[in-house]
Amino acid sequence: MQPSRPFVTLTFATSLDASLALAPGTRTALSGPQSKAMTHFLRRRHAAICVGVGTIEADDPGLNCRLAADHDTDGDRPSPHQPRPIVLDPGARWAVSEDNKVIRLAREGRGLAPFVITARGSGLLPPPPADWSGVLQRHGGKYITIPAHRAGDEVPPRFRWAEILAAVRDEGLTSIMIEGGGQVINSLLDGPDNGLVDSVIVTIAPTWLGQGGVVVSPARVFDAEGKPKPAVRLEDVEWIPLGEDVVLCGRIQRCEEESIEG
Amino acid sequence: MQPSRPFVTLTFATSLDASLALAPGTRTALSGPQSKAMTHFLRRRHAAICVGVGTIEADDPGLNCRLAADHDTDGDRPSPHQPRPIVLDPGARWAVSEDNKVIRLAREGRGLAPFVITARGSGLLPPPPADWSGVLQRHGGKYITIPAHRAGDEVPPRFRWAEILAAVRDEGLTSIMIEGGGQVINSLLDGPDNGLVDSVIVTIAPTWLGQGGVVVSPARVFDAEGKPKPAVRLEDVEWIPLGEDVVLCGRIQRCEEESIEG
Repeated sequence: MQPSRPFVTLTFATSLDASLALAPGTRTALSGPQSKAMTHFLRRRHAAICVGVGTIEADDPGLNCRLAADHDTDGDRPSPHQPRPIVLDPGARWAVSEDNKVIRLAREGRGLAPFVITARGSGLLPPPPADWSGVLQRHGGKYITIPAHRAGDEVPPRFRWAEILAAVRDEGLTSIMIEGGGQVINSLLDGPDNGLVDSVIVTIAPTWLGQGGVVVSPARVFDAEGKPKPAVRLEDVEWIPLGEDVVLCGRIQRCEEESIEG
Repeated sequence: MQPSRPFVTLTFATSLDASLALAPGTRTALSGPQSKAMTHFLRRRHAAICVGVGTIEADDPGLNCRLAADHDTDGDRPSPHQPRPIVLDPGARWAVSEDNKVIRLAREGRGLAPFVITARGSGLLPPPPADWSGVLQRHGGKYITIPAHRAGDEVPPRFRWAEILAAVRDEGLTSIMIEGGGQVINSLLDGPDNGLVDSVIVTIAPTWLGQGGVVVSPARVFDAEGKPKPAVRLEDVEWIPLGEDVVLCGRIQRCEEESIEG
């Protein structure tokens, strides 16, 4: 029997005021060299790493594993330890090009080309432009089309996490590290989807970024009387000081009681 | 030569999303028994502990040191290790009564009565009601009047931290632990007043309270080009795992360059 989803690790770095970045679309250096090394160790242990399109656009990240062993491959083939980048891009707005760092690393055999999960190509939406899919395919990447769902009038259609993870599992990827950005992390911390998370790893840097940053905080949760209650608690917690930062490892505690979301 | 201010320790406990409490005026249990014990150890090592009037009204705190040695005093006199509670109450809105926990503990010899710092009684403002000052004085507490300053049209007048700390020092109190609430902490994290802080001790609990809590985050700071930059960084950092929580100790890094506040 095959599980319907990969093992899910949610991981990110924040300031003391829970910000990932100074502002949306801004790359902000937060964690020190030791915690960055840990991130690359973790990437080596996962089959896939996942970010939202906003992170791709803001950071132009490499999304590969930079540990020495994964650089020293023979020929052009990437190491079998390189994780597969998964980009969540419902509207396929990422203009994929040879200039993107993740594409360049794939070309150089230092990483894998991304699988871009999109809703374009499903229902009435036209598929993504052929030149973008051409770039992906030349390096072993591709678009994967799954449905997006409209919750209200105001919100753009969104993926459901169970469907994202099922699509990842269908590609034979048995573990995934979900890394950012703010919208991706917050949506996965909200119940009931946080039940899909197997492991949480948070790096905290000893800095306050100040008000107006991109904050990690799940939606408010209320008790049966309508009073706010803590949204998410971790259990089996371990804190590991690492350079100037601390790394928190834990699992999301399952609720004993019904909760109503606000 | 006497220093013009006491040694200042800023200390508080937050969630992973930097909240002190689920909502203003709500007491929220965050830190575990070990970090609570640390707080009382720290209180024993400081001459004074300071909170804002909002915390008094929300939590009805004891503001004493609960370590065993400080319970076993002979007779009715409190232990010399009990810290002096300092309450910041510009408008003297706290209705001081025999029923307050901090007053009850002073009556029982298990703590000291508070010094309430207020702007009432200065300038055109009438002094606080005589029955409130009577309660304070019966137990060895009092009002201390210092000026408040109006910064804008919208904001109520505020104390200046240098003047608060000078008043505390004038009482012979050589060290102070500043504990809350959100407004007090955030105002002290803002530059240039954060230069008055000697030591920062933050307990972090492995819980997200969810959006809408009372968040610790200083005002945004901008660089010379008008771009946001990290507001406050700590140095000489130590992370100490304590039960399920972690305790962060550090000192506020002094800026090398001029900064403009937004």
